[in-house]
Amino acid sequence: MANEAAPPDFTPTEKTRVKRLHERGHYDRETVYAILDAGFICHVGYIIDDQPFVTPTSYWREGDRVYWHGSSASRMLRTISKGIKVCLTATHVDGLVLARSGFHSSINYRAVMAFGEAEVITDERHKEQALKAFVEHVTPGRWAMLRPVTSQELKGTTVLSMQLDEVSAKVRTGPPKDDDEDYALPIWAGVLPLKVSSGPPEPDPRLTVTVPIPEHARKFALER
Amino acid sequence: MANEAAPPDFTPTEKTRVKRLHERGHYDRETVYAILDAGFICHVGYIIDDQPFVTPTSYWREGDRVYWHGSSASRMLRTISKGIKVCLTATHVDGLVLARSGFHSSINYRAVMAFGEAEVITDERHKEQALKAFVEHVTPGRWAMLRPVTSQELKGTTVLSMQLDEVSAKVRTGPPKDDDEDYALPIWAGVLPLKVSSGPPEPDPRLTVTVPIPEHARKFALER
Repeated sequence: MANEAAPPDFTPTEKTRVKRLHERGHYDRETVYAILDAGFICHVGYIIDDQPFVTPTSYWREGDRVYWHGSSASRMLRTISKGIKVCLTATHVDGLVLARSGFHSSINYRAVMAFGEAEVITDERHKEQALKAFVEHVTPGRWAMLRPVTSQELKGTTVLSMQLDEVSAKVRTGPPKDDDEDYALPIWAGVLPLKVSSGPPEPDPRLTVTVPIPEHARKFALER
Repeated sequence: MANEAAPPDFTPTEKTRVKRLHERGHYDRETVYAILDAGFICHVGYIIDDQPFVTPTSYWREGDRVYWHGSSASRMLRTISKGIKVCLTATHVDGLVLARSGFHSSINYRAVMAFGEAEVITDERHKEQALKAFVEHVTPGRWAMLRPVTSQELKGTTVLSMQLDEVSAKVRTGPPKDDDEDYALPIWAGVLPLKVSSGPPEPDPRLTVTVPIPEHARKFALER
C-alpha cells in the first residue's frame, strides 16, 4: 500500500458526522482502513434521473484511495464515468445482539461510508496495477499464477477510483445494553457472533491438469 | 407470511432489467423472495440534496412487502418518511470464482434490487406486528421470550415499508467460465465457497439468572 502515513484523519462533515448513537462514530484512518481492508464487496450508491441506485460490487483500497470495478457496459459504470457523486458503503456483520427486550436487541457491525466523485482509471498500466492489487488483496499470490491479462481485457474492464476524503466509520461491539430493571429477568441475553467463513475449495470440473490447490484457496482470510 | 400466492411475477422495467450478463437476471417472486428471506441486512439508497446515501440496515419481508427499521432520529429515516424514492439492495456473497485469468475471475452471489417509495408505518399494532416478524425471522421463538415491548418503545422506533413492485434479482452460480484455450493451462481453478456462519454464543457478562441458551442462539440458520 502506497503512502499510508501521510494524510490526516477525516474531518466529520454534515454528511459523515454520525448523529444517532454518535459514540459509534469513528473518523480516524486506522479504523476506516481496517474496516475497508477486511472486505471486498461494497454497495455503491449513485443517482440516475433523480432515482437512487445501489449496486453491489467488488472494491479494494490502496493508500488513501478506494477502487472498484466491473464491465464498461454496466449501468452504474456508464453513469459514474460521467462524474456523478457516489456513496460507497462497506459493511461487516459481526453478530446478533440478543437483549432482554426487542427494543435493545441490536447488531454488532463495522461499516464505512465514503462520499466523493468517482474517477475512471484510463491509463492501462495503472488499471493493470489496480486489478493486481485487488487479486492480491483477496487471494494473495494468485496474480503471478494467472494467465497474464491482455490489452483487450484491460480495455474491457472499467476501474473506478475515489479519494478517501469525506468518510466515517460506524462500529458497534460488545454485549447488549438493557434497561437496568430488565437485567433481573429470566431471559437469556448475549451475542451470537457471525462471520464470513470459507468451505472446502470446489475444483473446476474442467480442470485438465494436476495442480495443487493454492494456499489462498484452501483458506479464505482477509483479516490477516 | 400473508398472501404469498397472489401477486404475479415482476415485469422488468428500464431500472430493473439486468443488462450486463442478462442471463443472470431473474424476475420471478420465488427467486426474489428466497434471496430476501436468506438475509437480514440490506443497503438502502436514498437522496438528500442531490447526494446519494447508502445506509446498511436490518430488513425483513412479509408477503409482497419489505420492511426495515431504525430510530426515528436517524438521517435516513427523517428523509425517507417525507416520501423520497429508495433503492433497497440485499446481497449474499456465495463464493470466490477463481478462474485461470484475472478477467474471468468472478464472485458467486445472489442480489435483489428493489425500487419504490417508502411508507412509514404509524399504526402501533401494525408496527409491533412488523417488529415481531423481524425478531421471529432472525431468531425463531424469541419474541415470546422477551420482555414485552412498551408503547414508548414503539413510538421511538420507526418502521418503514415498501411494496415489492419494481424488483429484480441477479444471481451467479457455478464454476469459472474461462477462455477455451486457457483450460489447458496448469492453473488451479474452481470456487471457494463463502457463507455467513455463527460461532458459539457469548453470554452477556451481566446475566444474573441461569437460563438455557435458546435454540435460535445456539445455531444461526436463516436458510431453513
